[in-house]
Amino acid sequence: MRTQVAIIGAGPAGLLLGHILHQAGIGFTILERTSREHLLGRIRAGVLEQGSVDVLAELGLDADLRERGLTHHGIHLQHDGERHHVDFVELVGRTVSIYGQQALVAHLLAEHDRLGSDIRFEVTDAAPAGLDGSNPTVSYTDGGVATELACEFVVGADGYHGVGRRSIPGITAFERDYPFGWLGILADVPPSTDDLIYALHRDGFAMHSMRSLEVSRLYLQVAHDESIDDWSDARIWDALQTRLGSDGWTLHEGAITEKSITPMRSFVVSTLTHGRLFLAGDAGHIVPPTGAKGLNSAIADVTMLGRALVRSIREGDETGLAGYSDAALSRQWKVQQFSQWMTDMLHLHREAPDASARDFRYRSQVGQLEYLFGSRHAQESLAEQYAGLPFTTE
Amino acid sequence: MRTQVAIIGAGPAGLLLGHILHQAGIGFTILERTSREHLLGRIRAGVLEQGSVDVLAELGLDADLRERGLTHHGIHLQHDGERHHVDFVELVGRTVSIYGQQALVAHLLAEHDRLGSDIRFEVTDAAPAGLDGSNPTVSYTDGGVATELACEFVVGADGYHGVGRRSIPGITAFERDYPFGWLGILADVPPSTDDLIYALHRDGFAMHSMRSLEVSRLYLQVAHDESIDDWSDARIWDALQTRLGSDGWTLHEGAITEKSITPMRSFVVSTLTHGRLFLAGDAGHIVPPTGAKGLNSAIADVTMLGRALVRSIREGDETGLAGYSDAALSRQWKVQQFSQWMTDMLHLHREAPDASARDFRYRSQVGQLEYLFGSRHAQESLAEQYAGLPFTTE
Repeated sequence: MRTQVAIIGAGPAGLLLGHILHQAGIGFTILERTSREHLLGRIRAGVLEQGSVDVLAELGLDADLRERGLTHHGIHLQHDGERHHVDFVELVGRTVSIYGQQALVAHLLAEHDRLGSDIRFEVTDAAPAGLDGSNPTVSYTDGGVATELACEFVVGADGYHGVGRRSIPGITAFERDYPFGWLGILADVPPSTDDLIYALHRDGFAMHSMRSLEVSRLYLQVAHDESIDDWSDARIWDALQTRLGSDGWTLHEGAITEKSITPMRSFVVSTLTHGRLFLAGDAGHIVPPTGAKGLNSAIADVTMLGRALVRSIREGDETGLAGYSDAALSRQWKVQQFSQWMTDMLHLHREAPDASARDFRYRSQVGQLEYLFGSRHAQESLAEQYAGLPFTTE
Repeated sequence: MRTQVAIIGAGPAGLLLGHILHQAGIGFTILERTSREHLLGRIRAGVLEQGSVDVLAELGLDADLRERGLTHHGIHLQHDGERHHVDFVELVGRTVSIYGQQALVAHLLAEHDRLGSDIRFEVTDAAPAGLDGSNPTVSYTDGGVATELACEFVVGADGYHGVGRRSIPGITAFERDYPFGWLGILADVPPSTDDLIYALHRDGFAMHSMRSLEVSRLYLQVAHDESIDDWSDARIWDALQTRLGSDGWTLHEGAITEKSITPMRSFVVSTLTHGRLFLAGDAGHIVPPTGAKGLNSAIADVTMLGRALVRSIREGDETGLAGYSDAALSRQWKVQQFSQWMTDMLHLHREAPDASARDFRYRSQVGQLEYLFGSRHAQESLAEQYAGLPFTTE
């Protein structure tokens, strides 16, 4: 078996890269460890930067997004019930779109089905080889049958636990763990807000997001080792009412259809490239969800990588591929510091050494938010980062 | 003995407040624990916000500043030799002035001498009393003689170790300690830079400041428990050359005339007011020196407090005094978060739990600086904070 680009992983990064390559007339095969059903069932991020929306539009992959996505003009920030709207349109002329990763994956997959793309589900033991030379391969097992895929390039878009990263000799990683996580719920109730609400509260962070005009998505900061069994629906709504509460505003409750706790981590590898192998998305970096940058970083990566692969294969120009790791990681570190800044500013830091230090931290976070509420410059800086830094390999 | 306002402390806060009161025709006495010589010999901060300069100009106290101060248009930020100029004038139309606290104290004192102001040096055991009523007193010992000063108001401008803060029942404080400090030197060599240089480096933070066109002031991040005896002049210059180094730029060395290590702390009290007692400056808050906010915060405090005292004494309007603590602390928390932000962004954080976390932190700081270098909005936010937030009791 032979293809031009072997893509490991059929998440949004792998599926989107497939479309970019297809449109340039480049052959690819996608190898996915899980089933189609599993892939379609995963609930993940839900905010697209304007740059991500633009990329989907340029590729003609935005039909579903235009129909079902919600355009948001900003976010609400609050501390202790004091709410302030940060208006991205007025500040920097940009918007974001609320559109679940689940919906994006479903749409990209449906379009691949329409094109008859070569996507293989439930293949195991994927193993890239020959990455130092010009004839790499990916061996894998499909329905019990050992198979080898010959290719020109391998892309590891296979997430944090994937084989891609493990195939780079000497790769190191930089990490920060947080002593808290997010308890997230989906609820069958129309959102109680227009734009998302991010709230700092004495009890911890809370957030009001949404999936659609009918489905709300809400989050609570909890300890990283907390059990979901200790959180009854009533306790969850109580905590959300307290932390999100603001005078003259009502949080509407509804049936909780999904709930889970996700730990938070910052993670970045030392390189995204080894010979003919390139990492993209979660395989190379993880952000805490506060700035909504995980999915968008994956889209940024494959947009840069896709262009570079097309330039290499079509024109024999390797400069894009040679610069990919540095360009993507340089952007990623800016995204990391933004995600960390949003996370640190809005969460309760119980890990401080004593009560005075914890109080100092909380009050300096309130000072940060109060400065932000009063400063157009600071709001512009938040807005340009939230709505998305440019994708560039220059 | 009787006066209208008893001011404890003849630092910049107390001396400036005396001038504000004098110009409104209000009587005051300043009680200072140390000698005139000691006061004039203390080397402290050296950057005035534009708002601080404006206050001195309005009071006609800027003659020496105009003659000897250096107007700076911005700062240089760098990491690992990559230097970037942040131009405050171009960004937000404001400047800062390089003018030592020592020079300011000398000038304010000389002007008080000219006016024949009542300033008592080397008085000990100052103790405010009767603060809950309308006839407070300050008892003290002057040349061995126990004395009592009757007054309408008491101002504690007596620094971190003063009696002012200790005179407020139930006062609490919020603190953050840093595991590092600054080794500062004065050197007889013209500055090697126009504007100040703030540098993040793998070995730690370094800074190039100045006192005049002939005298450089330079700083190195060191461990908080480091001994100055371990730092020979040669070792200091070596470290400065390494950390401040940038292609095509030369750091000129000269004779070191003063060197000392200062620990770093963030500290804010819960209130600045108790009855007829008001705290100002270091008595109420300490910032790490990175954002140059200590002296400027003291000036902001006494500007607000002076206006409020004048309104109370002249017009019987107590609203300014009633709102002073909240207004000054609200501004102070914004200043605290800025000082902390500058400090965290530019210093090496060896306290992170392991090598990966330390590397993560360093690289996210580089990401922060790289974002800043490329973002006009982020630079505007830095510039407006460095050049100074407004002084307001509204």
